[in-house]
Amino acid sequence: MTDRDFNVAIIGLGLIGGSLAYALRGFRSCRLTGFDIDDNVLYRARQKGALDRCAGSLEEAVTGADLAIFCSSPHSVIQNMRYCLPFFKSGAVVTEICGVKRDILTFVETTFPDHLHYIGLHPMAGKEVSGFANAEGTLFRNAGFIIVPPASYHQQALELIEELAHYVGAGRVAVNGADEHDAIIAYTSDLMHIAATSLCHDFPANMTMAHTAAAFRDCTRIANVDATLWTELLLENAANIIPHLGRYIENLTNFQAALQSRDQEFIQQFLERATDHKKQIVKL
Amino acid sequence: MTDRDFNVAIIGLGLIGGSLAYALRGFRSCRLTGFDIDDNVLYRARQKGALDRCAGSLEEAVTGADLAIFCSSPHSVIQNMRYCLPFFKSGAVVTEICGVKRDILTFVETTFPDHLHYIGLHPMAGKEVSGFANAEGTLFRNAGFIIVPPASYHQQALELIEELAHYVGAGRVAVNGADEHDAIIAYTSDLMHIAATSLCHDFPANMTMAHTAAAFRDCTRIANVDATLWTELLLENAANIIPHLGRYIENLTNFQAALQSRDQEFIQQFLERATDHKKQIVKL
Repeated sequence: MTDRDFNVAIIGLGLIGGSLAYALRGFRSCRLTGFDIDDNVLYRARQKGALDRCAGSLEEAVTGADLAIFCSSPHSVIQNMRYCLPFFKSGAVVTEICGVKRDILTFVETTFPDHLHYIGLHPMAGKEVSGFANAEGTLFRNAGFIIVPPASYHQQALELIEELAHYVGAGRVAVNGADEHDAIIAYTSDLMHIAATSLCHDFPANMTMAHTAAAFRDCTRIANVDATLWTELLLENAANIIPHLGRYIENLTNFQAALQSRDQEFIQQFLERATDHKKQIVKL
Repeated sequence: MTDRDFNVAIIGLGLIGGSLAYALRGFRSCRLTGFDIDDNVLYRARQKGALDRCAGSLEEAVTGADLAIFCSSPHSVIQNMRYCLPFFKSGAVVTEICGVKRDILTFVETTFPDHLHYIGLHPMAGKEVSGFANAEGTLFRNAGFIIVPPASYHQQALELIEELAHYVGAGRVAVNGADEHDAIIAYTSDLMHIAATSLCHDFPANMTMAHTAAAFRDCTRIANVDATLWTELLLENAANIIPHLGRYIENLTNFQAALQSRDQEFIQQFLERATDHKKQIVKL
């Protein structure tokens, strides 16, 4: 394959799509084409050198692309992929970066023709700010990446996505089915966002930033959410989130009862168990 | 006052006491005396240049001290202060760094003679590791400090403690009564620790660090607690914590119900309200 014979299309140049554009510079000597519904964002991405080429439309972006990366919310990704089906190049690898996979996988498994090779990807990276203005090529350095292949998949397509993950800086890479992905993410990402936002509903009287330390800063950092995106993500993964959230509420309720009854032994063991569990997972 | 005429005693050279020792270098050209129940820690602190002098006993540490800083858990601080009452110099300023103040204030207000000037201090700084080995002079840079004077206090003592807070690097300083301090800290610190530790009791099957991002890292960072210290802090402030924890559980329970009934509007508004509240508090 000669220089610039490998065409990559990125659809959606928000925080993740924009950061991928920056980070994919030089990947397989590719030519990077971008598309965004916001012309200003697209123009800015080209101007900042994140793209080689701006596409005037969705079909123009994916036509001829060897790799098409969809970077928007799950509903929009499915909509865009469906729209692009007649325009994809035969043998193209199609991926997306959504935080919940079941619906996308179902869509792909029921509608994708054999000559298209879908592999899901979930970069475990983000910021409490969004949009191309906050994109940066270093966003994925040492980040976890979850690769989510369909039940039946093309081996070379999986290898391309693995190569991409490592190229943009992946620290650890896991390969999971869609259901397993969604069940784990319901805890590592979704529950964390619910815990953090729920902490920001009732501040004590007279509280100021002088009364806060890293505990407050870190526990509530992700309370700055894109509410529309997160409403979609949380609703789509609700079946997996509800049991995790139920256990979380149960743990908190037990702790509250121990505080009420001044059960020192329960409290000490509760804290020790949390610290021990945390240490075990950090090794994995 | 000539050089080295100002004597400071630090009792307890853990993370906070040790960091204060480093940070107080040069404060009013003081001579810094340290005491710790662990001889090895005391020796190490002297060796590292954190202290001018090691005291062989508690009474030796506070004898002649113009400022005595008690840096251990609340029970131990009360015990040590009680023991030191006959040895304090007349006119000495006495402070401590505990995260809960009511019991200490009650002790001080009922037992301190008029010639001793107590002012409580709570540096809003910490780490997920403890002990002198992790102490550093920069720990308090830009940290919040809460100064907690008794109902009746000595103005110059308050000013000394304010000066100390700024000297070691305070970002913002608040002055609160003990009850107000404890009510606010029940949220900004105690509830955060309960939220974080409760998140670390039930991990999903097959979860690894590849499945985690900054959301998990930050929301669970403080789950590495000193369980004995935190059991004491949480029990001592239980009356203030319980209502905060109750509202937190209520918010989570309402959110769970909205997920179950797929109430998109509730979820969107819940997330937006959290983000708005968070932004308001960060300005204070």
